[in-house]
This record gives sequence, C-alpha cells and structure tokens, in this order.
Amino acid sequence: MNPTIERLKSHRSIRKFKDQQIPEELFEELIRAGQSAATSNHVQAYTIIHVVNPERRQQLAQLAGGQPYVASASDFLVFCADMKRATEAAARAGAETIQGMTEQLLVASIDVALIAQNIVVAAESEGLGICYIGGIRNNPQEVSDLLKLPQHVYPVFGLCLGYPDQNPEVKPRLPLAAILKEDVYDDSDDEALVAEFDDTMARYYKERTGGNKNTNWSEQLKPLFTSKLRPHMKEFLNKRGFGVK
Amino acid sequence: MNPTIERLKSHRSIRKFKDQQIPEELFEELIRAGQSAATSNHVQAYTIIHVVNPERRQQLAQLAGGQPYVASASDFLVFCADMKRATEAAARAGAETIQGMTEQLLVASIDVALIAQNIVVAAESEGLGICYIGGIRNNPQEVSDLLKLPQHVYPVFGLCLGYPDQNPEVKPRLPLAAILKEDVYDDSDDEALVAEFDDTMARYYKERTGGNKNTNWSEQLKPLFTSKLRPHMKEFLNKRGFGVK
Repeated sequence: MNPTIERLKSHRSIRKFKDQQIPEELFEELIRAGQSAATSNHVQAYTIIHVVNPERRQQLAQLAGGQPYVASASDFLVFCADMKRATEAAARAGAETIQGMTEQLLVASIDVALIAQNIVVAAESEGLGICYIGGIRNNPQEVSDLLKLPQHVYPVFGLCLGYPDQNPEVKPRLPLAAILKEDVYDDSDDEALVAEFDDTMARYYKERTGGNKNTNWSEQLKPLFTSKLRPHMKEFLNKRGFGVK
Repeated sequence: MNPTIERLKSHRSIRKFKDQQIPEELFEELIRAGQSAATSNHVQAYTIIHVVNPERRQQLAQLAGGQPYVASASDFLVFCADMKRATEAAARAGAETIQGMTEQLLVASIDVALIAQNIVVAAESEGLGICYIGGIRNNPQEVSDLLKLPQHVYPVFGLCLGYPDQNPEVKPRLPLAAILKEDVYDDSDDEALVAEFDDTMARYYKERTGGNKNTNWSEQLKPLFTSKLRPHMKEFLNKRGFGVK
C-alpha cells in the first residue's frame, strides 16, 4: 500500500482545529491541485467562495445548522455549482444558449464534487484536516444572498480546512461486497451485509462513547428518510435556474 | 510541492491502454481507498458495477456514444447513485421512508463523485490512467437495463481504468481568479479572464494539432448549450425515483 492510498484510507472528518493559519501560498496550491480534477467537457462548472470575513463566517455557521467549526476553522470554502460563466462564454461565442436542464445540474454538481475531493486529498497530504458541510443546503437561499450568488450558481456544500486539534478514529465503511457488484446489480446478499455492518457500527459507537451510544447504521439513517430532508431544494434549484427543463 | 499534489496536478485523461490487467488485489485496494471518502451522513449512497463481461463492455461502449476505450481498458466501472440500500435499511429499522426528494438526488450524486475521485487518485498513485465516461448518461435507460439496475439506483458515469499506453499533455485550467472568489461572488473580471483563457486554449489546441485545430474554450462549449444536452435526464431520473418531490 503506497503512502497516498494509506492516507486516503486514514481519512476522517476534523471538527476541531488549531489556531494556526494555512499559508496563502499553500492554500492557492491546494485550489490549483483541485482544478486538475476531471471536468465534464472541460466546462469547469464551479466557483469557490473563500469566506474570510469573520462575521460572515459566524452567519454561515448558524445557517448551516449551528456548526461552530465553520467559523473556527482556518479556512472555510463554499463550493458553488456555476453554469453562469460557461453559458455566458458560449453566448459571447455566438451560441443560443439553453439553461435549466437537469443534465446541467448533474454536470455542475459532479464537477464541484470532483474539484472539492481533489482539494481534500491535497490538503490531507499536507497534514491538514477537513470537514464537508452539507448543512449549507439547510438555508440555501440565505447562503446565496449572503455570498451574493447570481442566477445559475448554487451553493452545493461547504468545506472547513485547518490544522487538526483532534485525532478521531476512522469510521468504518460498508463491506466491499455491498457496494461493488460484478456485471449486474444483484443485492440478494445486501440485507445480510447490512446486518453485519450494523453490528460493526454498533460496536464502533459503543467503544467511542464508553457504552453510552446504543445505535447502528440503519438506526442512524432513519431521520434522513422519516423527516422530509431539505424539502426546499427542488423549488430552490428551479428558482436558481437549475433543473427546470 | 509534495508528490501527492504533484501527481494531482499532472492528471490528464487516458484513452489508450496497454493490454495489461490490473491485479485483483490492487483493484480491491483502490475501491477500499475510494470508500474512505467523505459521505453525507454516512449514507454511502453508491453502488459500483464492475463490468467484466466483454460483450456487455462492447454494448456499453456503443451506448456511451461509441467510445472504444470503454471496451478496451483493463477495467470499466459504472458508478451508480444508490438510495435503495439505505432506504431499505432505514425501513427495516422502522422508518416510514420517503423517496424521490431532489435532496436525495444531490446527496447520492455527490457521494458517487467523491468515492470515484478517491479511486482515481488512488489509481493514479499506482501509475494507472483513467477516463471518466459521462456518455453513460447518453442512454441511461438502456444502461440501466443492461446492468439490471433497480428503482432508486441510477448510472451517474463510467470510469475506464488501466495502464496508460499514451502520454497526453496536461490540459490547461481556468485562471485561479476566475474560479476562486473572496467573501462574495464577483465576476466583474470574468469576461477578461475567460478571454485570457480562450487564448491559452487556442494555443494549446494549435500546438497539439500542428496548427490544424483552430478553436478555444468558449467555442468548444457551444454545443453543450446550443443542442439540448441529454434532455431525457429529467424524465429518466423521475422515472427511476429521483428528484420527483
């Protein structure tokens, strides 16, 4: 196992950071490493907002559901899907452009995830810790207003970056056989594999909490489906010019 | 610049592969490294179909728009967004589950991109080359039928993996200032930055083709917007149980 793979496999989210700034040169290097990720048809459908104003950071921490590390991490980025730049470039080159296609929503959201994950890998290779903040989608309109995002740009997720001040355990993942299939989708073993994983996660939670946390993977998933998770997203995306047509 | 960042920055798509198989042990190691990527609420909303049957590979190469490397690469993966496993697990744990939320489409599509990019980084750290195949969405229903994908699972993209038999140049990316903004979205310089990038890309295309390819970034984007790119995606996703509510 080479050092890169070893580091990938030791990833865990960091939510407590040292009071130490990432040097600007390194920060830019991370973003450039991110840009090298694959991008659909070279469209590069993303804009990253580097939020440095402390008050704005506090507001984002609240909007993301009260996550204090959004304000306390060395750096905080909001990754935006951006179809504005490319559409306008194509229009200036003479295209009669179309917007609001579901395919564009997918292309931009995936482009964003690819650049972000490259930045994460680059950051962790320099000893930094990270935490993705999906909570940015809790109040996407307010986040968009705060960051002055125009039409055809939407905030996909946030990312905390900084020097770790904690060393949490690596969280187990589903058995390989559950997520990797040969030739066709066959989930006839999945119920047993999930039961096995529920046991793994139950042990993980118990050990981490001195026996206080009695739950497992399936139980932990329940709130994701029982409440209507972020039901505003469809209308929000339509309003922002994504996914209508 | 550490070796990991250096390798990230030297990424380019590989479309010609040696006739050399990836050892099974390494292959599984890559997938495990992928699984370590962050996942929204630990949901791990993905299934990877490892397509090994040569006839099925040929069919996919056709369905993806006639891309022969889909058949000729050492390994070909179809990355699927999968909300079936997690929903069924939550249901067995007693949740009254909801499906078809736009938020679930985003969570699953982003989860897929994160695991895929980790696999790509791991693969490239072992000297392998890769090529993402968005063309999987050209005929998503036929791909789903071929791979027997059930409801609440959709094919997001494919990935060719293998030992490179070509050494293409790294493709330039937009200037950092175009995609990285401080505190708020401000694109007042974007038109000039895009013009600068159009020049960069015009030079890149000319040099690569001995002066034969006379185009730039903005020109290359035009077909993405002028034709209705994959207009079937909205209906397809709705039919598969994604993005209705």
